[in-house]
This record gives sequence, structure tokens and C-alpha cells, in this order.
Amino acid sequence: MPSWVRWDTVAILGVGLIGGSIARALRQSGLAHRLIGVTTRDPRELQSHGIVDEATNSIEHAAREAQVVVVCAPVDRIARLVVTAAAVAPADALITDAGSTKSQIVADVESDGSARARFVGAHPIAGSEQKGPGAAHAGLFQDRACILTPTARTPAERLEDAREFWQSLGCRLVELSPESHDAHLASTSHLPHLVAAALALAVPPAELDLAAGAYRDGTRVALSDPAMWVPIFLQNREALLASLEPFEAKLSRLRAAIASMDESQLHELWCEAREARRHYREPEPAARNCSPVELQVSPRKDDLT
Amino acid sequence: MPSWVRWDTVAILGVGLIGGSIARALRQSGLAHRLIGVTTRDPRELQSHGIVDEATNSIEHAAREAQVVVVCAPVDRIARLVVTAAAVAPADALITDAGSTKSQIVADVESDGSARARFVGAHPIAGSEQKGPGAAHAGLFQDRACILTPTARTPAERLEDAREFWQSLGCRLVELSPESHDAHLASTSHLPHLVAAALALAVPPAELDLAAGAYRDGTRVALSDPAMWVPIFLQNREALLASLEPFEAKLSRLRAAIASMDESQLHELWCEAREARRHYREPEPAARNCSPVELQVSPRKDDLT
Repeated sequence: MPSWVRWDTVAILGVGLIGGSIARALRQSGLAHRLIGVTTRDPRELQSHGIVDEATNSIEHAAREAQVVVVCAPVDRIARLVVTAAAVAPADALITDAGSTKSQIVADVESDGSARARFVGAHPIAGSEQKGPGAAHAGLFQDRACILTPTARTPAERLEDAREFWQSLGCRLVELSPESHDAHLASTSHLPHLVAAALALAVPPAELDLAAGAYRDGTRVALSDPAMWVPIFLQNREALLASLEPFEAKLSRLRAAIASMDESQLHELWCEAREARRHYREPEPAARNCSPVELQVSPRKDDLT
Repeated sequence: MPSWVRWDTVAILGVGLIGGSIARALRQSGLAHRLIGVTTRDPRELQSHGIVDEATNSIEHAAREAQVVVVCAPVDRIARLVVTAAAVAPADALITDAGSTKSQIVADVESDGSARARFVGAHPIAGSEQKGPGAAHAGLFQDRACILTPTARTPAERLEDAREFWQSLGCRLVELSPESHDAHLASTSHLPHLVAAALALAVPPAELDLAAGAYRDGTRVALSDPAMWVPIFLQNREALLASLEPFEAKLSRLRAAIASMDESQLHELWCEAREARRHYREPEPAARNCSPVELQVSPRKDDLT
């Protein structure tokens, strides 16, 4: 294997937007020699996208020779997939995931000895309302935060592997406890998704001919896949319900200022909101908007010595 | 005046994003010969943008010879500016506006005889959180709805002029009563702005390092200018408060489904939200994202016969 190949085989369980983008990024970096994609559909369909070297329905087949297994599935299915993969993966394999919740997944995984010995929970903060491998691109993770959630039971070697793996995709690393991850993401991601859905439900479709940017952007993520989001809301229920409280309190203050025509209070609240929003820093536009990057030619079998 | 010039002089009161884009669109179409911009700041600053032929602080100077006066100002200042312009404008001049509320403005304008005889309320559904003439571009109104709000007291000739004027900017016309306009816009625009502000207030700035697209888009319009938006909220107070009710009801239903872990109800609500959002039709991307268009050379004084 040429010296630049870090992992001989990486197995990706679930090759949609996230899994497909991981595959493309690994191809581009040349750090993985062989990419196996596991799909619940017809493997020929996945193969046709040209994202992975090999497509299969068999987790066991994919995990058996993998140095890294990445699980990219709805959050309510991740722990089970990790446990299934861990039962056959090499003893020193890394198993990681890309789920938007962590507490439940990490707890479920750690209840299994084989899984616990290989797993490092991860959440790359990237994605969109799009889905499927057709939307995948190598730049999806560039300069994005990836949160790792190791615990006291995580083997140090696997944590090092996880850091190396996610950094190789372009991510900058953040390490948090699973609980802290869930509390943060409840307000920065899960709440905005819930609010977008409420807004989409509240504005009559018959009036949308008169809607513009505020509606468009405020409801965009309501286009997301319910198979991804319903499990996230349920798994992170408590933190999400807690994050709803300040939202409703702020909305009530805005409403009260409007109802009482308190112009100065309304102005003050608006300026506070604008100031808060100004703290948000966009990743480099080149990274966010880049179109699918030209794949580099990855080393072929013939290159192996 | 060459035959393609429809209006000799158009006065634009307030040359920011909207007024500046009107100027650029008129330049591009070649339908206006002379553009006078009225600013409350130093006219040389406006002149330096090269958007208008002449910049002035004097409404009277600008309106005296104008066939069309367009008022692009915060909604609480529009009616007064219309009345001021009407006092000096030619008897057959059209005065129109670009305000995001209509009932109060139209009622205030119609209390003045000179203003009533010239005015047609308008609201082009275009804009962004950006402000200032530097953000103006000729394509801003292309394929966008422009709502005209004539009343029984609006002269038929002025309504015809208003239709021609806004269509010449690329708008497709919609005609509504001022009250109907305000009810529609409360839910399609003012509510999304208010929700964006509540969201920006609710998510702690210290956590934004972990925020991504859902937060970014859901709060974008909280960056808007409070000088524009506080008066809109106050002028359209009743319709806005009414539009908050379905939003809060839908959010409560989502919360209840999460709290009770009612997966099928949550799934159903999400699919309903997604279906509603799919009714939104984006204007042509070429129109929305176009950068400032090359100005066509407008006819010079020498062209006049």
C-alpha cells in the first residue's frame, strides 16, 4: 500500500448526503484505499453513483476488514448498527458515526463491550435539507466543526484515530461530553428546525405567492427528511424542550412590545437580536458553496506492492 | 425626448437598497430620462454611487418636475413624504411607494386631497437584510410580485401609470385592498421576521460556533435594519398579532408531540410542514442572485429634441 494511504478499507454504513460526502472527501484526500458502502437498497444503485469502490447490503462483509466504520443513519438506528459492525470488525478498528444526537447513542453503544472498545461518537456540523448521494460533495466538511464525544470508557487509541479521521475530512475538532453536545445542539440546530416547521405550518400555502426571502430562508429546513429529524427530536427531547423555553419567552417579549406599541422596547429587542446574530461566523464561502470537486485518481489495486 | 423614454423625470425619495434598485432598473430599461434622488444625507455621497443623475436634499426640487415620484422610506415616514411631494408635483404626476405596510399609509395619504389625486400604494416583494445603495441592483424586482393597493378613490389614470411603472421594473402585478395586503404580508413576511428575531435572541451567542445552516437561515433577517422593521411591526400590529396565533398553535402541537413521544403525530406534522413549504416557488435564480447589471448608456441631454 503506498505510504499516503492511511486506511486500507473504510466502510460507510448509509451513503446519503453525509456518507457520500465522507466518501468523496476520502477519495479526494487519497487517505483511504478502498471504500465500501453499505446500503439497504439495491447495491447496484449505489454503485452507479461511483462514490464507493464496492456497494453491499451486508454490514458484516463491509465491517470485517475495515480499519474505519462510519455509521451515517437516522439517530434511532445508529447504536444498533454500531453494535452489529463491532461484532465482526477487527479489534483495533475505529467505529464512529455522524449522528445529530449523542447521549442516547453513546449510552446504548457503551452497553455493548465490543462496540464500546471501538466507538467514538462524532457529529460533523454540516448538511442541508438535501438528501441522497447525488447531493454529496467532497467539500461538505471543510472548516466545519466536528464534535467528538469520548467518555471515560473510550480507548485512547480509538480517540486518536477518530481525531485523525475527522480532521482528514477537513473538520476542525471540538470535544464535548455527549450531554453537553445534546444541550448545545438543541439550541443551535434542533430548535431552529422545529421553529422552521412551525412557521411552514403557520403560513397558508395559498399565500406563498406573496412570500419572499424571509419566509424562504426561515422555513428552508422544513424540507428536511422526517426520517432523519423525527428521531432527533425524540432522542433529544428534554434538551429540545428546554431550549424552547427561552425562544417562547423572547417571542412573548416581542409580542408584548408590539401589543403595547412600546417602540423603544421593540427597537431594543431588535438591536439585541441583530447583535446576537452578528456573532454567527460563516465558514469560508468557498467551502460552503463549492460544487462537487473533481475526484482525484485514487491509487488502484495495481499500485499495491 | 426619444420615443423610448417613457418618463422624463423620476424622483426617488430615499435611495437605499430599494430606491437604488429602482433607479438601476429604470436606467437599464431606458424608460426614464432623468433620475433625481432625494437623500437626507450629503447629496455628494449619493451622487458618488452613480445611481442617479442628480442628488438633492430637497423633496420640492425633485418632485416639481417629476412624472413619477417613488417614496422608499421607513413606513412611518411614507405618508408625510407623499403629502409633501404632492403639494408641488404636477397635477398628472404619479406618486407611489414601496412600503411593506399599506392600510395606515393609504388612509393617511387619502386624508390629503393633493396626495390622494396622485397616489397609488405599492409594495414590491423584494429586498434583503442588506441596506444602502451599494447593495442595489437592476434585477432586484425581476419576476417579483408587486402589490398595488388602489382604493375607490384612486384616479384610474394614476392606477394605469402605476401598473406601467412597476411592470417596467420587471414586476408581475397583484392588486389587493390595503387591508388584504396587510393581512397577507403579516403572515408571509412580518411573522417570519419576528420569528427570526426571537430565534436570534434565544440562541446564546457563545454557542454559535456550533451553529450551521438551520440557524444561519432561520435568523438571517434578524440582521435587518430596525429603522425599517420596528415601524412595520407597529403599523401592522393587529394583523401581525393575529398571524402569531397559528404559529404559536402549531409550535404547541409540535411540542406536545415531542413531550409525549408521539412519533406518528410528529411525523405527520413534519410531513405537513414539508408539503406546505413545497408550495413556495422561488423566482428564477438568475433574477435573485444576479450581481449588479451593467448599466446601459442612458440617453443624454443632447439626445433631446
